[in-house]
Amino acid sequence: MIHNFNAGPSILPKQVFEEASRAILDFNGTGLSILEIGHRTPLFEAVLHEACELVKELMQLNSDKEVLFLHGGASTQFFQIPLNFLGENEKAAYLDAGVWGTKAIKEAKAFGQVDVVGSSKDKGYTYIPKDLQIPADARYFHYTTNNTIEGTEMFHIPDTSVPLVADMSSDILSQQLDFNRFALIYAGAQKNIGAAGVNLVVLDKNFKATAGRKIPSMLDYQQHIANGSMLNTPPVFAIYVCMLTLRWLKSIGGIPAIEKINREKAERVYSMLDNHAVFRPTVAKEDRSRMNVVFVIDDPEKEKAFQQACKEQQFIGVKGHRSVGGFRLSLYNALPMESVDAFCQFASSFR
Amino acid sequence: MIHNFNAGPSILPKQVFEEASRAILDFNGTGLSILEIGHRTPLFEAVLHEACELVKELMQLNSDKEVLFLHGGASTQFFQIPLNFLGENEKAAYLDAGVWGTKAIKEAKAFGQVDVVGSSKDKGYTYIPKDLQIPADARYFHYTTNNTIEGTEMFHIPDTSVPLVADMSSDILSQQLDFNRFALIYAGAQKNIGAAGVNLVVLDKNFKATAGRKIPSMLDYQQHIANGSMLNTPPVFAIYVCMLTLRWLKSIGGIPAIEKINREKAERVYSMLDNHAVFRPTVAKEDRSRMNVVFVIDDPEKEKAFQQACKEQQFIGVKGHRSVGGFRLSLYNALPMESVDAFCQFASSFR
Repeated sequence: MIHNFNAGPSILPKQVFEEASRAILDFNGTGLSILEIGHRTPLFEAVLHEACELVKELMQLNSDKEVLFLHGGASTQFFQIPLNFLGENEKAAYLDAGVWGTKAIKEAKAFGQVDVVGSSKDKGYTYIPKDLQIPADARYFHYTTNNTIEGTEMFHIPDTSVPLVADMSSDILSQQLDFNRFALIYAGAQKNIGAAGVNLVVLDKNFKATAGRKIPSMLDYQQHIANGSMLNTPPVFAIYVCMLTLRWLKSIGGIPAIEKINREKAERVYSMLDNHAVFRPTVAKEDRSRMNVVFVIDDPEKEKAFQQACKEQQFIGVKGHRSVGGFRLSLYNALPMESVDAFCQFASSFR
Repeated sequence: MIHNFNAGPSILPKQVFEEASRAILDFNGTGLSILEIGHRTPLFEAVLHEACELVKELMQLNSDKEVLFLHGGASTQFFQIPLNFLGENEKAAYLDAGVWGTKAIKEAKAFGQVDVVGSSKDKGYTYIPKDLQIPADARYFHYTTNNTIEGTEMFHIPDTSVPLVADMSSDILSQQLDFNRFALIYAGAQKNIGAAGVNLVVLDKNFKATAGRKIPSMLDYQQHIANGSMLNTPPVFAIYVCMLTLRWLKSIGGIPAIEKINREKAERVYSMLDNHAVFRPTVAKEDRSRMNVVFVIDDPEKEKAFQQACKEQQFIGVKGHRSVGGFRLSLYNALPMESVDAFCQFASSFR
């Protein structure tokens, strides 16, 4: 059996694969492939509607929140956010806690002033900066809830009155959180939401684009809202896979249920690593991500042997990101406990 | 049997559906779904590479051409092109021959001067403007090769030394053309290339972005080229479906072979329409699109009856675009001759 610890695109529930596979041959008994139906048909409108409603229900969003499925991935949000919300003479506060946050900062600097209110660059982003001083006049505060590459996660929402903007690409829907506290949430779908090729955006209606720029239609949140995520042809199949995955999450009990499982998966992996001296988790204990477990093996010979053993035992996607090295296990929602247990058993017997 | 005349997303070859469906359960015998493989793996890199090579081969591109698969659809190209190539004090020439060209013009105006060198707005975009005077100092000339909504197509390449930029979303790969004459070609995939959710861009290396603006990474063609269409997570599955569709096109003889079929399909439909007074094709004869056949039935009673009859006979996607009304048959590459013949037989017996 293959155990897929890919960091994204990553494992999805088996029933999602099965239903998506069927829908490519015959979508809902229509005799048509999901790939050949028009996006402006009741068939697809029902898919998009259900996906949006499931997001609202699972995240318990209030009526101020708009749910969008957009093109371009989280990387497009890096510049779309300041383009809309950060005026030339305004400032925004950013947290520098990993590769993705750094990229978001770089893009924002082209639009206005960026105040980096905390950074863990000094220690290779192995912890989450604490005691943030977020200037009250910042237009918004941007942070990454989970650092996929470095394996840190921010479990609390910062205490500030400044509008919160969060990149939740790699831990959205994995744990309970007061999502209504955010002005804007975005997340690439390819970890906990569905397949690669679409991006979820949750925008508070009261968070207005005041930057005063001419904004191209495709980068204007208001136009996407007015057109219900169909300003142009949406990524139909990717949205369909999101809908299936959201349905699955609801069917197993939603976020409270998956959080319990996710805590248990992370607990088992970190315990095993902590109890075996050959492995060295790289992240400060209190900031350890439940989604991406990063560790190294200091002995190069053993590291190589472990890599080889993982391959032979069909534990895939366990290599650390090229910028960090070592190993990374991604424990997203769809990764079954069986894979965690199989890995722990295998790794704990590694010499 | 269902006959799918959808304007996009639209019919794809049956074997593409079959192979895509299989790959969602087991991609190339790996035991993994195409939806769960990492994009930075040899598995996906091979898919992307093959898709790019097939584009180069089928379009007979010279070595100056870069092939990109990008997010955002053709609508993103509407502003990405002037953002990169049209300086504030420069002008670009545009052709106004349909809804999509009009949108491209609107987006470009935010970046520099737009000279509309021809328009068929006066007659509801039912013909292609001729005798274009393209100013020699224009930064580029932009046109839409096929107007999906109105059903007109431009079969010749304008004679100008100005760099040519073309939106080929709805007729790319349908006929032979000297694609090397273009500085930039773009096309949403969801008609002749593959599934919705990805955009093909063919860029000439000598067409340089000189607009001098700060360009966000995701909108910078050079960064996409440098990263081989993997600046961020690409739409993996949509690209895979493109690769399968391109393979199919090659297997049947490439563009010369499909052009022959496409000419025959269009000829049969237009002949039938011309020979039955109840139908009135709306487009000037010399500009009739081979991809999208637009016609009306002037008698409202008969129009309604024909709509109903199409539905009963399972001819789907035949309703005209909401901005034009009437009927539209899209005859994209994958639409089989059988569907054309079935429609012609059905329609010619309609009273």
